Amino acid sequence: MYFHKQELQYNATPAKPDAVYARKMQEILGGQYGEITVAMQYGFQAFNAHIPGKYRDLLYGIGAEEIGHVEMIATMIAQLLEKAPQGISDDAIQDDPAVAAVVGGMDVQHAIVAGAGARPVDSNGNPWQGSYITASGNLLADFVANANAEMQGRLQVARILHQTDDAGVRDMLGFLTARDTAHQNQWIAAAQELREEGYEDIPVPNKLPREKEFEPVEYQFINFSDGAQAGEGAWANGPTPDGRGTFSYVETPDAGVPMPPPTIPDPRYFGTTPLPNAAEVKQAAKKDRKHQE
Amino acid sequence: MYFHKQELQYNATPAKPDAVYARKMQEILGGQYGEITVAMQYGFQAFNAHIPGKYRDLLYGIGAEEIGHVEMIATMIAQLLEKAPQGISDDAIQDDPAVAAVVGGMDVQHAIVAGAGARPVDSNGNPWQGSYITASGNLLADFVANANAEMQGRLQVARILHQTDDAGVRDMLGFLTARDTAHQNQWIAAAQELREEGYEDIPVPNKLPREKEFEPVEYQFINFSDGAQAGEGAWANGPTPDGRGTFSYVETPDAGVPMPPPTIPDPRYFGTTPLPNAAEVKQAAKKDRKHQE
Amino acid sequence: MYFHKQELQYNATPAKPDAVYARKMQEILGGQYGEITVAMQYGFQAFNAHIPGKYRDLLYGIGAEEIGHVEMIATMIAQLLEKAPQGISDDAIQDDPAVAAVVGGMDVQHAIVAGAGARPVDSNGNPWQGSYITASGNLLADFVANANAEMQGRLQVARILHQTDDAGVRDMLGFLTARDTAHQNQWIAAAQELREEGYEDIPVPNKLPREKEFEPVEYQFINFSDGAQAGEGAWANGPTPDGRGTFSYVETPDAGVPMPPPTIPDPRYFGTTPLPNAAEVKQAAKKDRKHQE
Amino acid sequence: MYFHKQELQYNATPAKPDAVYARKMQEILGGQYGEITVAMQYGFQAFNAHIPGKYRDLLYGIGAEEIGHVEMIATMIAQLLEKAPQGISDDAIQDDPAVAAVVGGMDVQHAIVAGAGARPVDSNGNPWQGSYITASGNLLADFVANANAEMQGRLQVARILHQTDDAGVRDMLGFLTARDTAHQNQWIAAAQELREEGYEDIPVPNKLPREKEFEPVEYQFINFSDGAQAGEGAWANGPTPDGRGTFSYVETPDAGVPMPPPTIPDPRYFGTTPLPNAAEVKQAAKKDRKHQE
Amino acid sequence: MYFHKQELQYNATPAKPDAVYARKMQEILGGQYGEITVAMQYGFQAFNAHIPGKYRDLLYGIGAEEIGHVEMIATMIAQLLEKAPQGISDDAIQDDPAVAAVVGGMDVQHAIVAGAGARPVDSNGNPWQGSYITASGNLLADFVANANAEMQGRLQVARILHQTDDAGVRDMLGFLTARDTAHQNQWIAAAQELREEGYEDIPVPNKLPREKEFEPVEYQFINFSDGAQAGEGAWANGPTPDGRGTFSYVETPDAGVPMPPPTIPDPRYFGTTPLPNAAEVKQAAKKDRKHQE
Amino acid sequence: MYFHKQELQYNATPAKPDAVYARKMQEILGGQYGEITVAMQYGFQAFNAHIPGKYRDLLYGIGAEEIGHVEMIATMIAQLLEKAPQGISDDAIQDDPAVAAVVGGMDVQHAIVAGAGARPVDSNGNPWQGSYITASGNLLADFVANANAEMQGRLQVARILHQTDDAGVRDMLGFLTARDTAHQNQWIAAAQELREEGYEDIPVPNKLPREKEFEPVEYQFINFSDGAQAGEGAWANGPTPDGRGTFSYVETPDAGVPMPPPTIPDPRYFGTTPLPNAAEVKQAAKKDRKHQE
Repeated sequence: MYFHKQELQYNATPAKPDAVYARKMQEILGGQYGEITVAMQYGFQAFNAHIPGKYRDLLYGIGAEEIGHVEMIATMIAQLLEKAPQGISDDAIQDDPAVAAVVGGMDVQHAIVAGAGARPVDSNGNPWQGSYITASGNLLADFVANANAEMQGRLQVARILHQTDDAGVRDMLGFLTARDTAHQNQWIAAAQELREEGYEDIPVPNKLPREKEFEPVEYQFINFSDGAQAGEGAWANGPTPDGRGTFSYVETPDAGVPMPPPTIPDPRYFGTTPLPNAAEVKQAAKKDRKHQE
Repeated sequence: MYFHKQELQYNATPAKPDAVYARKMQEILGGQYGEITVAMQYGFQAFNAHIPGKYRDLLYGIGAEEIGHVEMIATMIAQLLEKAPQGISDDAIQDDPAVAAVVGGMDVQHAIVAGAGARPVDSNGNPWQGSYITASGNLLADFVANANAEMQGRLQVARILHQTDDAGVRDMLGFLTARDTAHQNQWIAAAQELREEGYEDIPVPNKLPREKEFEPVEYQFINFSDGAQAGEGAWANGPTPDGRGTFSYVETPDAGVPMPPPTIPDPRYFGTTPLPNAAEVKQAAKKDRKHQE
Repeated sequence: MYFHKQELQYNATPAKPDAVYARKMQEILGGQYGEITVAMQYGFQAFNAHIPGKYRDLLYGIGAEEIGHVEMIATMIAQLLEKAPQGISDDAIQDDPAVAAVVGGMDVQHAIVAGAGARPVDSNGNPWQGSYITASGNLLADFVANANAEMQGRLQVARILHQTDDAGVRDMLGFLTARDTAHQNQWIAAAQELREEGYEDIPVPNKLPREKEFEPVEYQFINFSDGAQAGEGAWANGPTPDGRGTFSYVETPDAGVPMPPPTIPDPRYFGTTPLPNAAEVKQAAKKDRKHQE
Repeated sequence: MYFHKQELQYNATPAKPDAVYARKMQEILGGQYGEITVAMQYGFQAFNAHIPGKYRDLLYGIGAEEIGHVEMIATMIAQLLEKAPQGISDDAIQDDPAVAAVVGGMDVQHAIVAGAGARPVDSNGNPWQGSYITASGNLLADFVANANAEMQGRLQVARILHQTDDAGVRDMLGFLTARDTAHQNQWIAAAQELREEGYEDIPVPNKLPREKEFEPVEYQFINFSDGAQAGEGAWANGPTPDGRGTFSYVETPDAGVPMPPPTIPDPRYFGTTPLPNAAEVKQAAKKDRKHQE
Repeated sequence: MYFHKQELQYNATPAKPDAVYARKMQEILGGQYGEITVAMQYGFQAFNAHIPGKYRDLLYGIGAEEIGHVEMIATMIAQLLEKAPQGISDDAIQDDPAVAAVVGGMDVQHAIVAGAGARPVDSNGNPWQGSYITASGNLLADFVANANAEMQGRLQVARILHQTDDAGVRDMLGFLTARDTAHQNQWIAAAQELREEGYEDIPVPNKLPREKEFEPVEYQFINFSDGAQAGEGAWANGPTPDGRGTFSYVETPDAGVPMPPPTIPDPRYFGTTPLPNAAEVKQAAKKDRKHQE
Repeated sequence: MYFHKQELQYNATPAKPDAVYARKMQEILGGQYGEITVAMQYGFQAFNAHIPGKYRDLLYGIGAEEIGHVEMIATMIAQLLEKAPQGISDDAIQDDPAVAAVVGGMDVQHAIVAGAGARPVDSNGNPWQGSYITASGNLLADFVANANAEMQGRLQVARILHQTDDAGVRDMLGFLTARDTAHQNQWIAAAQELREEGYEDIPVPNKLPREKEFEPVEYQFINFSDGAQAGEGAWANGPTPDGRGTFSYVETPDAGVPMPPPTIPDPRYFGTTPLPNAAEVKQAAKKDRKHQE
């Protein structure tokens, strides 16, 4: 069960209106790596968790905090829009380049659809979607997905932080980056603990039996480009992170295997299939064509 | 520039047709973590890379291999479909539960749209989409995204491997899991090398200045659920993975701040805003209602 | 701020596994009118609300309950999947029509992507998306949208209730339909109260000035089909629900106005535009063609 | 069968070009609540209707009118774009802020994709999609969905009406708001008539048998937020709109039920499941870690 | 303006119910090349047309017919579903493989969402979307797009025609293929007439000035694969269809140009950029690592 | 297998930065008819081809070239963004209309998500999706789809070519239009060769038996609009392109057939179905209503 309390975790009030910035802030609300994503992702991972106790508690504990971050950012966006010009015309604003520029840079659906409110979309107006989240039931894979989400998310917050001088906005974003620092570290720590406690290991999934015949290619870097320095990295030399092998470098991919012959499905699919006598048909057709010319 | 060679990297021929399995295999072709995703993701990361040399070579080197994996899986799917019953009816097959079950479990667009061919969709028929990929320009974040993609991808291959007895399919999937093992390890190794060489560090982005005032919350685990064991993990105790702090546990979130007052935008948005005399209006309205009853 | 408590509002445990039913239940979790929709819709309406007090409290109060319903249904789905056959093959299950039928009817991503867990998608595997929700800032419009959502949602729950005999599932769905009864009534009551208290009225938006010249068509039913009985309904006769007019019936639409001439944009868009001498060109071309024949 | 007549129902010609406004107008053409939505929604409701006569005639009668509104708005958009600067460069227009502002605010696909034509997308360029519409077969639910669509639609038209001074645009939008007034009232009247004639009633679906055991929660407002005034509304006191009960207020939700234990699916999904001796493994692992430090 | 007449263009009644077939039929209703696509595509091409007269009349004339085809197919689908088992359970139908197979193969949203009605989606339940259509303002390009749509559409109808023995369904599909034959021929004829009358020509757009420097590559087939027979086709030899050149065959692509150096954007994007002294940093890091081991 | 070479096929470096133009260029990279579409479309057609030899070689040969075009355009976009102002604020740039206009016109996700890199989206930020491509297994249909894609693609390149004066951009676009000229001609030539060689013919699919009873409508133009000139075109007179008939013109569609009666599904779908005694119920209801007034 979830409960709401009419408070915010931290201040979320801008110094002044800014419709263009409100649009940018949608990215960290409803974008691929916005707060809706992490709130939903941690929630579904908790719902689908297979072990009780601290790992599931961790997922629920951070997941609920993130719903509150959704609320904070939405609240901020609504205030950024509250007094901003959004195209309402007493006075033919379209002729004023400054105002027109604002209209150009804003999310016009903020005005038309939401009446100066926040929306569950990204900074280009793409609706948030369920395919942004990852919840596989394998906690090591999922905690790495979470670390990834927090990294991309913190990166985006850092970028938009540099796109405003508004003290109120910067204050809230500063708080959020601090929490992202915490969460990013926490998922990394949790992934490490899963390995130390013997639940999961690299490569994911670890419990799939290895097959002898594929060992030769299991730790090869095979270079399908002609980059001269690809063989110099730690991915082509030395011990592998899973502690079970040694990387090697294959500069030129081995010859492959012949492609299987093309398929010939049932004729009632009306695909284009070989003619019994294609050569002759063609020959005849070519002749006909020549005669016509 | 990209060049194609009419060979496959490894065998990709099934022992027998299986339209239901062909549908499942679409997940690792056109799903969120299928081969199209990694091919496109590594490609865009390479296009957007800011440093020449081994890291970009790595991206191009694996990226091109993955396009070949797209081809291998698509080739396999077309063969799984080639001779499989897909609803073509000489003989009123809908009345045969066995055949009907096949039709029920297959992707009917394999028959109707592709004429027994592979499609750029997942196992539920959702089209592949550009929002599946991540390419931020920050290589540490992106290499973690790549490790995540390989983990989820290898997990899915492992799952469908257990859903068939077809020797040809299992052979190809065995090869692919071996390559996923390699790539998963390689992205982890590459992320580690970026840190060792001083390019990037945890938390991502590392070069964002920390602000003193938020230090208190920077490494706290704040428990927004009531799970009793959330404080027992490595995410709530001990040193943080970024090497800059110590985790602490906050069992009960601090009191928040008051919510800002609701916004009141321009009346021409026709939102519902406070009445000057709401109480009186209401009172009057209530009275009217009573009189009507 | 949102807080989580490790309890469920009501029982959510099935009597037995059923992967096909788990798929159907996704509709009321992640479908257009599933629980994610109402949780998010009421949340965004609250974030965007312009008046403090009881209406916003109402939105927050029901909104948080709905997040708990998301959790209940997800928990149910995971249990329906827990022991159900999902295509794992010790024993070549594809040859058994009964098992194959299950696989055919299930959401195969339940197995491949979520490892027997719930997902934020509908019963056809379409990811939930932000465009399902409505939050306009106009509370009368939005409360009608909420009543609509609860109506469609309750209808869907009622339908799937008749598709199972599982006592545990029916128990939970019974509880949910009761809560839907409450919420459906509550949004209707709230919409009515908004009108009584003078905040908003029909038609929405009510404060848009009416323009005299359009009064003739403001309450007409104009029949663009040839259905003979369209004029018999309350929408074509008698007083209008907004209390400001009288419906009338127009059996044959009035003649319209001439279409404006086609546009002729800048030639650098390379659209197909009139030729100066099209007739002559055509004539010449026709002649040429004849000569060729 | 549908027939087209080369006339428009009303004038649809702007006074002057305006590419930015053309983009905004896309919302009421191809947005969630634009004319394509209502045309398709009423059409599918008619196709799926189960009773002949006036209700189906109503759906067909308005549905066909709405296709004509799609045409009117598309025609207007093409004219707004016809002479407007859209980025074509004789003269390095990007350096002129005024022109650049226009380009910034317009839908660039109007120029690049449609060559100055209308498109089936919303004001942010999201393609119209079938999931915008509702057609459940239950006419009471669907007529409320229609009233909702007309309310949101009229609200959006009213908003963009205030964003232009163009007399031609305002004239057409005035006509459309008048028709929206009619249709909004008509769906409300039709919903009411369905109830009066005994076809359907509140709550939808009305014919689902009520279960005694859930009566206690059937009309409760349970407050999952801490808003102090949520109990003051008509949704928490007095008779319910379905005429079958009385609302009550529950300030603090009852204690819930324990969550069921986490699921433990087949190991071949490679999810993270409990270890037989997790505590010992952990203990050992922790020791190892300490020794390493 | 569009008008509806309560008749169908042709019979649309099945001999018997078939929920699985109803799902397949969704492809030709709401799929990429279904009837909604052609109805909308021809409509938007008409709205955006720049020349009055026969070409626009053609678009309107066929476009309105296609709306009637949408109606016919939807009507057929509703009847296929009317009496078909769709998972309603008096009698524990999940245990009957035959019935379960039907449920497995059907679109479960037909039952849950539409209550046995048609939906604006394809045979995998993907909602129809505006991005399926093409309307560029260039009539030659668009008529080829229309021919393409009719070809793919007729192919799909032909495929599903072979998946049923139902006389009623086959009768309607036979009618539709006949109309597709007409329309496919008509778009080809119209494209040809545009060329003959001098409006447009190959290549599209024809009025773009050619640049001398690119003439060498303008008619080359450059083989980026190693297929041995690619040079044998009409695309690599002989006159070009636009009548302006001669194809030639380039077996091995010319050497390309060097890639530009990677970009180095503003540091406040926090991308990974070169280190001033990367080599030294690495060296130092490598040393450190060795010391730790 | 695919191999990458670290060269570009042609120059791809702009003369100067331009973030607005970078956004426009996304259309030809990740739009419906952008380079990703053709690369994927030709690839899937090759994977699904049923005949070995020159046609499949053609698909592979052009398909691999198009992947290189994806790389070229992405490389160009990254450079257009490299030094362009994208909203980074030392100095409160939002107050400068010129800079604000740039921000307004750019894709803000270029800055926030990609850190000044290219993305797999169109010029409105819609992610590329698998449903853009066509690969049916019928080569004549698919080659027409390819000609269509090259036509629309070349049209879009031509349009954006006129929206810049940048010599570097124009140089690359000139090269691309030349290659589009080649490919457009080549698909037309290939479609023609398929017909000449007897593989496929018009109408597609050609091998579907014609049914006598539908011959009357097979070549009719039936005018569902009232356009007076629709009968004047080549689509309504003279021989048909498939060489098997003669077009005729039907000015007024024949009377249709009666619509089948509405469906009445199982009552447990809770649809609205006829009342046994609707008239009486209504009568009674109407009376009640009158009495209340």
